[in-house]
Amino acid sequence: MDIGVIGTGLMGSTHVRLLSSFVSGARVTAVSDPVSGEEVAAAHGVGTVHADPLALIRDAAVVAVVIASPADTHEELTLACLQEGKPVLCEKPLAATAEACGRIVEAEAALGRRLVQVGFMRRYDPAYLELKRGLDEGAIGAPLLAHMAHRNAVAPGHFDSAMIITDTVVHEIDVIRWLLGEEIARATVLAPRPSSRTRPGLQDPQLVIFETESGRLVDVEAFVSSGYGYDIRCEVVGESGTLELAPPAAVTARIAAQRGVAVEPNFQGRFATAYVQELQTWVTALAAGGEPTGPAAWDGYAASVVAEAAVESLRTGTPVAVELAAGLAAR
Amino acid sequence: MDIGVIGTGLMGSTHVRLLSSFVSGARVTAVSDPVSGEEVAAAHGVGTVHADPLALIRDAAVVAVVIASPADTHEELTLACLQEGKPVLCEKPLAATAEACGRIVEAEAALGRRLVQVGFMRRYDPAYLELKRGLDEGAIGAPLLAHMAHRNAVAPGHFDSAMIITDTVVHEIDVIRWLLGEEIARATVLAPRPSSRTRPGLQDPQLVIFETESGRLVDVEAFVSSGYGYDIRCEVVGESGTLELAPPAAVTARIAAQRGVAVEPNFQGRFATAYVQELQTWVTALAAGGEPTGPAAWDGYAASVVAEAAVESLRTGTPVAVELAAGLAAR
Amino acid sequence: MDIGVIGTGLMGSTHVRLLSSFVSGARVTAVSDPVSGEEVAAAHGVGTVHADPLALIRDAAVVAVVIASPADTHEELTLACLQEGKPVLCEKPLAATAEACGRIVEAEAALGRRLVQVGFMRRYDPAYLELKRGLDEGAIGAPLLAHMAHRNAVAPGHFDSAMIITDTVVHEIDVIRWLLGEEIARATVLAPRPSSRTRPGLQDPQLVIFETESGRLVDVEAFVSSGYGYDIRCEVVGESGTLELAPPAAVTARIAAQRGVAVEPNFQGRFATAYVQELQTWVTALAAGGEPTGPAAWDGYAASVVAEAAVESLRTGTPVAVELAAGLAAR
Amino acid sequence: MDIGVIGTGLMGSTHVRLLSSFVSGARVTAVSDPVSGEEVAAAHGVGTVHADPLALIRDAAVVAVVIASPADTHEELTLACLQEGKPVLCEKPLAATAEACGRIVEAEAALGRRLVQVGFMRRYDPAYLELKRGLDEGAIGAPLLAHMAHRNAVAPGHFDSAMIITDTVVHEIDVIRWLLGEEIARATVLAPRPSSRTRPGLQDPQLVIFETESGRLVDVEAFVSSGYGYDIRCEVVGESGTLELAPPAAVTARIAAQRGVAVEPNFQGRFATAYVQELQTWVTALAAGGEPTGPAAWDGYAASVVAEAAVESLRTGTPVAVELAAGLAAR
Repeated sequence: MDIGVIGTGLMGSTHVRLLSSFVSGARVTAVSDPVSGEEVAAAHGVGTVHADPLALIRDAAVVAVVIASPADTHEELTLACLQEGKPVLCEKPLAATAEACGRIVEAEAALGRRLVQVGFMRRYDPAYLELKRGLDEGAIGAPLLAHMAHRNAVAPGHFDSAMIITDTVVHEIDVIRWLLGEEIARATVLAPRPSSRTRPGLQDPQLVIFETESGRLVDVEAFVSSGYGYDIRCEVVGESGTLELAPPAAVTARIAAQRGVAVEPNFQGRFATAYVQELQTWVTALAAGGEPTGPAAWDGYAASVVAEAAVESLRTGTPVAVELAAGLAAR
Repeated sequence: MDIGVIGTGLMGSTHVRLLSSFVSGARVTAVSDPVSGEEVAAAHGVGTVHADPLALIRDAAVVAVVIASPADTHEELTLACLQEGKPVLCEKPLAATAEACGRIVEAEAALGRRLVQVGFMRRYDPAYLELKRGLDEGAIGAPLLAHMAHRNAVAPGHFDSAMIITDTVVHEIDVIRWLLGEEIARATVLAPRPSSRTRPGLQDPQLVIFETESGRLVDVEAFVSSGYGYDIRCEVVGESGTLELAPPAAVTARIAAQRGVAVEPNFQGRFATAYVQELQTWVTALAAGGEPTGPAAWDGYAASVVAEAAVESLRTGTPVAVELAAGLAAR
Repeated sequence: MDIGVIGTGLMGSTHVRLLSSFVSGARVTAVSDPVSGEEVAAAHGVGTVHADPLALIRDAAVVAVVIASPADTHEELTLACLQEGKPVLCEKPLAATAEACGRIVEAEAALGRRLVQVGFMRRYDPAYLELKRGLDEGAIGAPLLAHMAHRNAVAPGHFDSAMIITDTVVHEIDVIRWLLGEEIARATVLAPRPSSRTRPGLQDPQLVIFETESGRLVDVEAFVSSGYGYDIRCEVVGESGTLELAPPAAVTARIAAQRGVAVEPNFQGRFATAYVQELQTWVTALAAGGEPTGPAAWDGYAASVVAEAAVESLRTGTPVAVELAAGLAAR
Repeated sequence: MDIGVIGTGLMGSTHVRLLSSFVSGARVTAVSDPVSGEEVAAAHGVGTVHADPLALIRDAAVVAVVIASPADTHEELTLACLQEGKPVLCEKPLAATAEACGRIVEAEAALGRRLVQVGFMRRYDPAYLELKRGLDEGAIGAPLLAHMAHRNAVAPGHFDSAMIITDTVVHEIDVIRWLLGEEIARATVLAPRPSSRTRPGLQDPQLVIFETESGRLVDVEAFVSSGYGYDIRCEVVGESGTLELAPPAAVTARIAAQRGVAVEPNFQGRFATAYVQELQTWVTALAAGGEPTGPAAWDGYAASVVAEAAVESLRTGTPVAVELAAGLAAR
């Protein structure tokens, strides 16, 4: 399948590399990026570089589109894909605001068929999938609570306190909705004493509490300057037991009075398999003439609404209710 | 050292057994319990059974007292020990109310020397001690957050929702104060959808959030009908890393497509070493003519004030500030 | 790249599936198997089914060949690939006897370029690769010993005692040579009291001791009817520490007084990533016009010589020296 | 119970400390050591220091004796205890030679009652006990194999190659006999390339293979200069699963891209609980008027016979049969 990739920064160039060399049945035929487009195209043998991303979307040699450009371009580009009737895998967030996400949900609903998938790649991580399978099989009875942590080694330089929610916790928001199979109804952000090792003014870490429609509680520690590595934790507590992501471990070293394993330095390593599976599953479904089966526009919309409620809670210091637009097509 | 034990139920009879057979330099010379006193005395070769616990305290053959009778007797008995000038190890809670605890603190302060120790045995658990040592040595920099869980397999029949705080979470309250070396300033109890497998009306699990004076946040899951076993979790997150209690594991079994370890069924097994060390350290210090070095009356008082704030939060659904009496002698 | 697959049983059909749907740049254009050829071709959209595997090898629409037919066909088919000048990935063993493997080494050497790769897929397993990287970086100093175990849940019905070496331990033989970077010089097979739960007459488990040229010792437990699952263990002991494969674990379940993880039931699950990486790396190298970079004909030969020595030791009960033909082209 | 301790070096002074301060019902009333006797007595309030260890044994204020002096004194001292009719806990080895051990077995048998216990403290380690319990309950069916490792951080300066067996592996010899409940019939010592980081001439590590009477095989890695710490490994493989000592872990640290736990530096830490339990169980049994229940003189004798066979195998490079004297009283 011939794919065009818009945005070839860190995330987009990874997609180009994976689609070119590790995904069966895929080929990148065009890219568009004002900075690195030419270089990435050369590195991976991509034939066409479009200056205008809309031209890429209209390019007849592009059957499906991956969007990995800055968030504020997502709405326009995704709507253009819908207009062209081309499947689009859009990196999170689906759009810069929940309202904009809602417009995409409506536009796709008006088309009458699924074209949009949102890049919540964790749904393709083997460990999360095993956890989800256990939940669905009733291994621990009805879930009541979940505890999560999302830690990066060092905060990106451009991060502000709200981005810890919109760019980091947004993954947990999607995971909660997916694992528990219901919407989040309320968000509360608690701000502990911040780390002195990160940029002054950055509220890091944060402790976010989500309440689902049925009253389940999920606490999420977000700590983007944890210092020691990239670490994703998740334990779901049910009525008869718990399921927890086992910390990744390939090799145990016994050296110098320590027995230990290496911690992944970044998300690219931790979720390497998930990224390939996300793309492979997407390509395989589309190549067979089907619709995408991954996270839908509604998932992107719901995640954005919840994230905005959490940002509001961070600002005000009080719990904020999540208001999903009843009029939008449900999942 | 000749010791008298008041109350020989589950906890008190354990103390009699340990003091009689596993603590160097200790001997139980008298017990008092209206129900099981005679039986426990016979089982462990205790010479005297007092019908009146106050008589036990006054007994010249009793050098130090362990109190493990019901909570509402603690104040009177502890004060009696102070009056007799005898060291007393009182099971938690120090007294039935924070106010009563305060009176004990004042009475001991008036005496001018330490006689009271409160039975927060976790401070003697080897794993907690290693965690505390790591914190004190700065292994993870300044602590910012902590995540804890306290799970029992099955809720005791007499438990109500408040007791999940006063009898269960009270251990975490002491651990937080001890590990972080500061007071708790605020408590918030969140009530998720309760388990359908426990007694109707019991709010179980609970998610309790504590904020310390310096703004650190600690979340505690309390779940007394977890179904699967007794499980104590604790991870402290610092500015440059985290320290976490490793789940207890003695033998790994590979059987029937599973690799696993047994989970402790109850607190007696999980904290067996802690109970012995608590008593041994207490006896050794007293036998050397010193004062007790374990949790003080103030610790019992502070834990009770925090627990009462949490119970109030459970009732009202809002955060409750912890008000420690400024006039009382500080630790 | 257009690939023909000879033999579409358990292993060969897996290769067809992976090459068709999970390997970038690969396509299966022909298969040959007297039993399942038609069915597998239909399932994966393979255009041609050859009754004669030699016809598949000569098929102009086949650029490279995978051999997964019975071991006694490997020599003839691999030599035919060499004659056609086509790259061939041959499942282990490279041929039915060490002598036959030697003829393949010689034939390829006569050609003057590498065409043969042997299917020792463990060299592509991420955990083994991390272990090898650690060794090569000197993390534990010079290796002195290694301990390995290879356990299957249930012995295949056709297994005899020698096959536990030639089909099972042969993987460890290759791993030892690859990890330690030297040849094995001696093999000793010890036969403990066999399991009563497997077929009478089968010597299972076996304890195999290998000595390398430089005097390192490796013990390998082979137990193909372990009862509980598929489990691969490997610890290398060096002068300043050890490196060990961490047991695979995705999700930890706390249920019914146990904390555990699932054990893989079979090699397909345990080495799923390794199989894909083996094929992807092979296809990518060939598609770029290069030679295969994986295990060479010499590796297949050396593994067979060692396996034959071990089988001889199993028969005689004494250590047997490994005699590699000095005249054959070295690695 | 009033105890005399002969030999107050590293091991003996530990016994004095534990008996004085951590064992219920015990008191050290006399010690004897030409070097450190006075100092240890002063440190622990021991009343009498005997210049002559035989005088200590005859001392009326000594009810039971602990022997922790050099191995070549054990026979004479233990026999003296038997002559005095006093219970004796003798550190391993029971005597300097198997023949001497045999004389102790005979002397005790002639007395007609048990007085001797040998200091194989691992039988009191909680993890080994749980493993033994699992075996006895049939958790893994009939045992077939066991894999063990015994690693010290740094070899003691006075160690020679034979002492790696007689002082180190001797613990595994006892553990094998105890866990499997049968005698060892044959020993083979394999000598890999030795570590370059230890004393020249020291054969370290060694790989020892034991075969039991019923044909079970046990491999033991002994590596006294492992470099990284004190590490004891043991996995028993049965017909339907395996049981393995879980590596000790109290606190998991996530720091600097590593997730790890501390490895015990030495045996005192690893077996701290075992030493206390060994002494407590011994004292409790004797104080109740009973016989010692721990490892018997026969166990000390059998361990020495096996160790001597292993030393012979180390010397000759061939398997050596274990010949237990049929005439000696069985266990």
